[in-house]
Amino acid sequence: MRDVAIIGVGVTKFGELWNKSFRAIGIEAGMKAMEDANLSGSEVDGIFIGNMSAGQFIKQKHIDALIADYSGMATRNIPATRVEAGGASGGVAFRQAVMAVASGMHDIVLVGGAEKMTDMDDTSINSVLDATADAEWEAGMGITFASLHAMMARRMIHDGIATREEIASFAVNSHFHGALNPNAQFRKAITLDTVLRSGPVADPLGVFDCAPISDGAASLVLCPLEDAKKYTDSYVKVSAVTQASDSLALFQREDITTYGATVAAAQQAYSQVGITPQDIQVAEVHDTYTVSGIMALQDLGFFKRGEAGKAVLEEQCHIGGKIAINTSGGLKARGHPIGATGVAQIVEITEQLRGSADKRQVPNAKYGLAQSTGGTGSAVTVSILEAI
Amino acid sequence: MRDVAIIGVGVTKFGELWNKSFRAIGIEAGMKAMEDANLSGSEVDGIFIGNMSAGQFIKQKHIDALIADYSGMATRNIPATRVEAGGASGGVAFRQAVMAVASGMHDIVLVGGAEKMTDMDDTSINSVLDATADAEWEAGMGITFASLHAMMARRMIHDGIATREEIASFAVNSHFHGALNPNAQFRKAITLDTVLRSGPVADPLGVFDCAPISDGAASLVLCPLEDAKKYTDSYVKVSAVTQASDSLALFQREDITTYGATVAAAQQAYSQVGITPQDIQVAEVHDTYTVSGIMALQDLGFFKRGEAGKAVLEEQCHIGGKIAINTSGGLKARGHPIGATGVAQIVEITEQLRGSADKRQVPNAKYGLAQSTGGTGSAVTVSILEAI
Repeated sequence: MRDVAIIGVGVTKFGELWNKSFRAIGIEAGMKAMEDANLSGSEVDGIFIGNMSAGQFIKQKHIDALIADYSGMATRNIPATRVEAGGASGGVAFRQAVMAVASGMHDIVLVGGAEKMTDMDDTSINSVLDATADAEWEAGMGITFASLHAMMARRMIHDGIATREEIASFAVNSHFHGALNPNAQFRKAITLDTVLRSGPVADPLGVFDCAPISDGAASLVLCPLEDAKKYTDSYVKVSAVTQASDSLALFQREDITTYGATVAAAQQAYSQVGITPQDIQVAEVHDTYTVSGIMALQDLGFFKRGEAGKAVLEEQCHIGGKIAINTSGGLKARGHPIGATGVAQIVEITEQLRGSADKRQVPNAKYGLAQSTGGTGSAVTVSILEAI
Repeated sequence: MRDVAIIGVGVTKFGELWNKSFRAIGIEAGMKAMEDANLSGSEVDGIFIGNMSAGQFIKQKHIDALIADYSGMATRNIPATRVEAGGASGGVAFRQAVMAVASGMHDIVLVGGAEKMTDMDDTSINSVLDATADAEWEAGMGITFASLHAMMARRMIHDGIATREEIASFAVNSHFHGALNPNAQFRKAITLDTVLRSGPVADPLGVFDCAPISDGAASLVLCPLEDAKKYTDSYVKVSAVTQASDSLALFQREDITTYGATVAAAQQAYSQVGITPQDIQVAEVHDTYTVSGIMALQDLGFFKRGEAGKAVLEEQCHIGGKIAINTSGGLKARGHPIGATGVAQIVEITEQLRGSADKRQVPNAKYGLAQSTGGTGSAVTVSILEAI
């Protein structure tokens, strides 16, 4: 198996991009990544796309072919592959691309993640999102994604794992960083009070506990580590990218205050690299809801069970704190165009490790981690990148 | 890169399976494949699923997690990945799985393909299918999949590449073999007259030129070639699996009587194995419509341009003829549950090469090929398997 490097990254602004089509944002992110890697495009021999629901959001399936076509690569018959794993679509696309280069089946691979969600009305959007829960045992019974997460939050509060205030503080952390990111959907710091007093969605979670509906795209260029220097001096190593699954429905788990798939994927990733959670200086975690952010910090081993919420409330997860979490603004403030999210996380960690994160720069980071989650933790990828 | 073997196959009956759920057929095919490979299931360390539209057909996305869950593998956190490439979803899933084993990231991988289409009304089904064409330039203008293929057929007839009768004869060939396959949706041989007189769909294509709407699932077990003997004496080698793309919309092609992606993927595959099209004794090609079947025979190099239709009409593609084509019954007679199709093709070729194809057995086949197509040839995989 060959070692793999990330030699280019690109991301569009995230938000309500009503003046841009899915095609336009997909190509924008891809062009930025290729430019960043000093490529003309003719070097690319494979494309992997993370996308959750273009078939419903914009009535276009077969996004693999669309992107190959509109990037001009179909004229060279370059293979393109779309993967979907609910919210983890971007993370899984990244993993497939790493596999493609590691195996030797491809040399220079473009990874894309994109979603255009805001061209649809809110009720329809929610029915699309709920289809990543169990259709027979959850969504079909009227359970929404927000209510599933509200149950987890209630249980965490009940068990004394985190207080309502601690859970809410995750959004404050995300907005604090989002204000520093020019590509974020929301660029405004907020107070704890704003989260606690926000309109109810599914008790105890309010509007500010939930990631927004967004449009956006992100892109990466990968190549074998040994070839990276041919293209750029500014690259990072992919040290591990693991994936794990859990039951689709929440009721089938013994404990709903932890994601077994995150724990399994993280343990595998740390062991592959030979490090511990304490060696990570910067991480992007999948905060679809504040409660999933808190849970991630525990499941990834950054904090002991019962201590993550307290740490976030005490601002230990800001840049300069114990560990910098969601410096991009996370799903909550940077935005959450679903298929793009997992790829955008890798973009952020790459920027951090190569020292190009501007106002969000974490000093001297050696290892960075990204966690991408589908459904209620039914599919999880954990990636560890390393500065060179 | 490690060589890869197929050590187990499983397929459900294809058809209108109103008494079985998506979950049930997915598991049925997977269990059959694992049993065939003499596995208990605990050996499997990765799952790849080809599925086009469960999010719309049965309102369930995140099929990767669903299958991991209902196969019992989520309890071991085994990663599962769903890929979609329109009609080529199954072929692309197979390729990803081969990549996973070849790279060393996985050892024993289960590949599944499944689709449950008949629980939806026909108009809705068609709008789902049309979403694999170009939403802005084709489907959005009212063009259907059948009418796109009718244009290709008209052009072939106009250019003298094939007559209407020759095109129609592809369905006769498929039904001839389907009658021999106990798992086929249609098990009845038909005459050329039946195809020519069938109700019009998009002139010149009639009902019998079109693959049916189907439910069904298919599955494979892969492992490194060097380990295959540990599990079974009955395995085949994956000699090549290539993938190529073409423009999403038909109008952007210089010639609509050939699929550039098939030609590119096939050339790559033959060159990887070091053989010519004439070394293939049995092949499964993607006959969504009769015209796509004829085109495939030319693009794969089995017949010269202008000679494929004549060969099919003269029954040279029956078992015992020049080359046995679609011995399973193909998409037309075996059925076309979209995500399952590309995987079921590999099942059929495996059965042929290991000599377990029963009444459909092609004698002494050394090499077999499968071609899986998405959209109007916008994504194509070509796989070559080899008897051991």
